[in-house]
Amino acid sequence: MKIDSVDMYYLSMPNVLDIGDGSQDLLLVRVQAGPHVGWGECEASPLTTIASLVAPMSHSACKPVRDSVVGQQLNDVSDIRRIGDLVRANSLDLLQADHTLSGIDIALWDLLGTRLQAPVWQLLGTSRVYPKRPYASQLFGDSPAETLRLARETHAAGYTAAKFGWGPFGTGDLAVDVDHVQAAREGLGPETALMIDAGTIWQADVERASLRLKVLDECDVTWLEEPFVTGAFEAYRTLAGRAGRVQMAAGEGSHNAWQAKHLIDYAGLGYIQIDAGRIGGISPATDVASHAHASGVTYVNHTFTSHLALSASLQPFAGLEHDEICEYPVAPKALSYDVTHNHIERDAMGYIHVPERPGLGMQLDLEAARNYLVETEITVRGKVIYRTPELVG
Amino acid sequence: MKIDSVDMYYLSMPNVLDIGDGSQDLLLVRVQAGPHVGWGECEASPLTTIASLVAPMSHSACKPVRDSVVGQQLNDVSDIRRIGDLVRANSLDLLQADHTLSGIDIALWDLLGTRLQAPVWQLLGTSRVYPKRPYASQLFGDSPAETLRLARETHAAGYTAAKFGWGPFGTGDLAVDVDHVQAAREGLGPETALMIDAGTIWQADVERASLRLKVLDECDVTWLEEPFVTGAFEAYRTLAGRAGRVQMAAGEGSHNAWQAKHLIDYAGLGYIQIDAGRIGGISPATDVASHAHASGVTYVNHTFTSHLALSASLQPFAGLEHDEICEYPVAPKALSYDVTHNHIERDAMGYIHVPERPGLGMQLDLEAARNYLVETEITVRGKVIYRTPELVG
Repeated sequence: MKIDSVDMYYLSMPNVLDIGDGSQDLLLVRVQAGPHVGWGECEASPLTTIASLVAPMSHSACKPVRDSVVGQQLNDVSDIRRIGDLVRANSLDLLQADHTLSGIDIALWDLLGTRLQAPVWQLLGTSRVYPKRPYASQLFGDSPAETLRLARETHAAGYTAAKFGWGPFGTGDLAVDVDHVQAAREGLGPETALMIDAGTIWQADVERASLRLKVLDECDVTWLEEPFVTGAFEAYRTLAGRAGRVQMAAGEGSHNAWQAKHLIDYAGLGYIQIDAGRIGGISPATDVASHAHASGVTYVNHTFTSHLALSASLQPFAGLEHDEICEYPVAPKALSYDVTHNHIERDAMGYIHVPERPGLGMQLDLEAARNYLVETEITVRGKVIYRTPELVG
Repeated sequence: MKIDSVDMYYLSMPNVLDIGDGSQDLLLVRVQAGPHVGWGECEASPLTTIASLVAPMSHSACKPVRDSVVGQQLNDVSDIRRIGDLVRANSLDLLQADHTLSGIDIALWDLLGTRLQAPVWQLLGTSRVYPKRPYASQLFGDSPAETLRLARETHAAGYTAAKFGWGPFGTGDLAVDVDHVQAAREGLGPETALMIDAGTIWQADVERASLRLKVLDECDVTWLEEPFVTGAFEAYRTLAGRAGRVQMAAGEGSHNAWQAKHLIDYAGLGYIQIDAGRIGGISPATDVASHAHASGVTYVNHTFTSHLALSASLQPFAGLEHDEICEYPVAPKALSYDVTHNHIERDAMGYIHVPERPGLGMQLDLEAARNYLVETEITVRGKVIYRTPELVG
């Protein structure tokens, strides 16, 4: 079948706050081929991504992403790989293209799965899937007291793992950071796994990061996430060497499989964190999962938005039995919960399961989504090259 | 002084052809602080980059690039570094931001140099500059006969170094590639340095690339550029090991200093090629030049557009005496020649010199530039957030 159209929809909360919460807006992708429709999501700046979809060609290696997708044949999984390669070659010099491709690749898998009546993980060659242990992913409170309250709530809600990140952590005094980590541990109790996300706050400064290792060890922290920017391999390696039991986690900034593989090969990570909505979709994310598995590094999804994105991010490692832990947005904005009718809920044991239904197994709630639509229009030389399309199934 | 405004102008040839020629459009950046103006250029998809400049905030680490620049103090070189760090932190999750920052960083250096009445290289701490030997950078002909003709013209025009790339090279039979390389060598004569640019055509396929090593060696090719995509470190290392005298060159795809440093550290390169219009500007490009110098890797600019971009790309290695060779666009489209009044021309010996005048030393020809302006408008929620500003000095 031939791909007829690729449409993007910019959804947003009415007010976007200047906080680390990435669930405040969302870029939905709809791909149509004949009677079949697939849905995806880019974890990306919506307007910038839309622009890269339709931007006039600059030269043969800087083409709008849409040109490498619409009109292509989509009959089996190799076509999805082929289309990804085409986008990467034809948009080699268009930096945003990897984020743009991400949602398209996800939608292509959803579409093909729906058509073949198979869940995406099965199309990926996974014969058996394993339950994942969700960790409650949330921001630090503004004060240690607030972090303590949040941690207690998380524990009361039955999570056996939790992550705190961003907010004030790393921005000020060591003592404040120590208080926050101790508050998180106190609130969660001794049994719940605790992860800390520094949000690249120390750039590449190993010494500033090292000052936090003592409290992380004392509070039995499983991983320290993104103490540094993605490229600071040497800083990661050095800190990993000093950190004892506390492992390093990173990778959400990877926008292609190479970058994630380099982190695995050169940065001394214990955990590689991949957002299918950024790395170019489910296809490269699956390559990274294989490489991580072969390298003894644990694969974890990065997901902070909708359950459509969650389903997409679970597919690449659904078959990896021992890579059990998974990121689970615990307090997303209404938008990212509302866009799907169904949700990936925890079972009685507190575990979640990758959907068994065809494609990504998620049913969009378009009526709800329409309430969040941000009408957008781009005009070049007096001609409208993008106008928010009608949001239909 | 306080930065009052950052404006971007999308310029283009009337018709953009589906060829590797990156000089067919251009994104001009104007930064104003009080009475002072600086100019820069992004080597990037114009519409996508403009969108990233003004896109509504998604969350605290995905802000429009402009928000981290306008209103900032610009008094000395450390301010330019600080603003770059601010953009990278505030737009961490906005992939296009590095390309966007590139032209802004260049304009900030130009502005500061103009105000302090010093050339940018002096502000960078370079006490003495050295002439550069320009290589004529051009596309392969459609046929070996056409390549032969182009090479003869290049030789007749007095160039002592030339590079051929893209076009049919690597896309078909080995025999065709052999004919093209031999035609280039024949047309240039035995004395002219010859470089070959494969434009990432073999992705990471070492065996296909290796088939070309024999003719490259026989034709005394100085470097083979981008046989593989930027991330394929292992493929680069392996090919470098097999290539004997022919060195590997890469790096133009780097959009931050880390990536270029990784290529230097892990990919076995002989030459690192940096486009200041992509890597985040003159600041990170200069960091890469230092790292390359310390690592025994030769730094070369990547430039395929205007002489404003050429001046910007020369600054980071103007003081490196032995890194003599430089890319010089030999047949750019009229647009990229027309946008400046003055040009960096070859002297009687065939060498070029980084401008001695303040800033980047280039005088914009705004009247000519206006002929290429592409009127662009972006509307979000019924409000115009970008409309091509008036192009004034």
